[in-house]
Amino acid sequence: MGESLLLKIGQTVFLRDDSLVIIDRRRFPHQVEELICPNFEAVARAIEIMAVQGAGDIAITAGYGLWLAAREIEKKSIVKPGQGQVLIEEARQRLVATRPTGYHIAALLKNMMARTDWDLYPWSPQILTQINKIIEKQDTRSQLTGDWAETLLQDGDRVLTHCFPGAGLLYMFLKARQNGKQIRVVCTETRPYLQGARLTAWAVSELGLPVTLITDNMAAYCMNRGMVSMLITAADRIAMDGTVANKVGTFQLALAASYHMIPFYVLGYGGPDKKTPSAQEIPIECRDPQEVLFFNGISITGQQVDGFYPAFDLTPPNLVTAVVTDRGILSVDEVGSYWSLSR
Amino acid sequence: MGESLLLKIGQTVFLRDDSLVIIDRRRFPHQVEELICPNFEAVARAIEIMAVQGAGDIAITAGYGLWLAAREIEKKSIVKPGQGQVLIEEARQRLVATRPTGYHIAALLKNMMARTDWDLYPWSPQILTQINKIIEKQDTRSQLTGDWAETLLQDGDRVLTHCFPGAGLLYMFLKARQNGKQIRVVCTETRPYLQGARLTAWAVSELGLPVTLITDNMAAYCMNRGMVSMLITAADRIAMDGTVANKVGTFQLALAASYHMIPFYVLGYGGPDKKTPSAQEIPIECRDPQEVLFFNGISITGQQVDGFYPAFDLTPPNLVTAVVTDRGILSVDEVGSYWSLSR
Repeated sequence: MGESLLLKIGQTVFLRDDSLVIIDRRRFPHQVEELICPNFEAVARAIEIMAVQGAGDIAITAGYGLWLAAREIEKKSIVKPGQGQVLIEEARQRLVATRPTGYHIAALLKNMMARTDWDLYPWSPQILTQINKIIEKQDTRSQLTGDWAETLLQDGDRVLTHCFPGAGLLYMFLKARQNGKQIRVVCTETRPYLQGARLTAWAVSELGLPVTLITDNMAAYCMNRGMVSMLITAADRIAMDGTVANKVGTFQLALAASYHMIPFYVLGYGGPDKKTPSAQEIPIECRDPQEVLFFNGISITGQQVDGFYPAFDLTPPNLVTAVVTDRGILSVDEVGSYWSLSR
Repeated sequence: MGESLLLKIGQTVFLRDDSLVIIDRRRFPHQVEELICPNFEAVARAIEIMAVQGAGDIAITAGYGLWLAAREIEKKSIVKPGQGQVLIEEARQRLVATRPTGYHIAALLKNMMARTDWDLYPWSPQILTQINKIIEKQDTRSQLTGDWAETLLQDGDRVLTHCFPGAGLLYMFLKARQNGKQIRVVCTETRPYLQGARLTAWAVSELGLPVTLITDNMAAYCMNRGMVSMLITAADRIAMDGTVANKVGTFQLALAASYHMIPFYVLGYGGPDKKTPSAQEIPIECRDPQEVLFFNGISITGQQVDGFYPAFDLTPPNLVTAVVTDRGILSVDEVGSYWSLSR
């Protein structure tokens, strides 16, 4: 059984010489290209251009951005220790604004700000300690989520997935293999960024599972042909009412799954967002339309054609079978109870 | 109001110096590249590689292939006139096999074979006369279908379409403009060949209508946002029970439209195929999986990943609101009655 570069964030996002190094995921799987971020603004831009992908990994990258911001402030000797929190707050806001739909960045940075002792100068070592703890915690969370999700898999299952659902998906497949379950995987390519092709299909194949790549418009046909027994995606945010915000296309897949009576499970890792009661509170990030009008720098349509690029969509709770978290599998009606559960 | 190169087949598929010239539609809209087919086998290959697209245009291109086959046979002086039909039959079978899902090639070639007087040597002039008549007939059919479809449009409608639905769609929009209806158009890019981006969005924009391009996975989200009041596609084949075989992705769009209570109209031009009672009789063409694994010659996934490329899918009749033909608009239950209608 193989390993995947995408199982642990430390393999693709790490510090070197006081800079953050990101192995640019837009170049996967065929190129290993380092994106060097010497300051927090460079980190914010790397997140915006999607050099890093997957809700959890994006949040940790933003955490490193906060660390770089602290370092930058500390280096300016004119700054008094008491001003730190105010100046870092600006960096926090900049980082949160990079990807508005997901809640992981906001939740992680808020947590880090609250846990920093601002009277204890310098702050950056504290922040770095926190990041390392969060990485460890997130890895444990991914493993637990994967373990729970694996209990849903039966020998012979055919899993359709969309975009890159994070390490939990890979842990799930590893566990299934350990338990002797034969699983086949179908990945949508996930236009326009092709995360499904470049990240998920590749990572799953590296683990040694048979995986088939399709374009986004083939999913319903594959369901109809019996190639899919289960749909599994991640979520960039889950509202307390069970609404799932995830990579655009998820809603459409959930509709097709519902029509074919195929269960749709959401890898919910750390549960729903307590501060998001329902779909209304979830902003949908609309990205540069040029990203739809061009492919690999080549224009694919006429000059008078507009593009539209919503990066996420919302799947209503009635289309979701269950949410898989590190604390167990929750029906969509009781997803809010996550916060009263322990592991 | 503009014109579109795709309104009349003669602008992109024509004879020159005894060869068939195809303006390669895979290079549209930014390159005008001629594909020269000096013999019938070259025509068959051009159809296979999808240098020509749209069910009606493909059928006429195949018709030219039959003409070239006749010419080739006639040039071999050792062939006796009586053998012509047998030898051309081989060419006919080769041409029909290029794209098995659609029925237009088979229907058109069968018709041409039946109408040729095989005792009247040479046969090729008769075949060419037939092709010219069919082109004229098909253009009239597209106009009539477009006129009927236009009666479904209301001022302010927002039409979502998929792949390239042929000249009928363009005639519909031209008529709507004449009637002062403001229509907005949303086109899916239609992976993997991007016909929606390269052909439809471009052609519609050339006519002067506002058009927005989206990736295939954004359609349900756009419906949910109110960007779509009507779904319109063509069909490569309509069974007598109302099942619609069309470019893969149509089924998924029909499901999303049904969920949002958005009507789905199919441009059915010359009606259903009398010889296809239901979905069971429609073979789905599966194309080379490499076409999914590569984009513009660049590999987009890992080497251990398989690809799957069904070129069409089947939409069951219950998801189709009505079929628009040159003889009128038929509810899906009565689509078989097309054959007893007159224009």
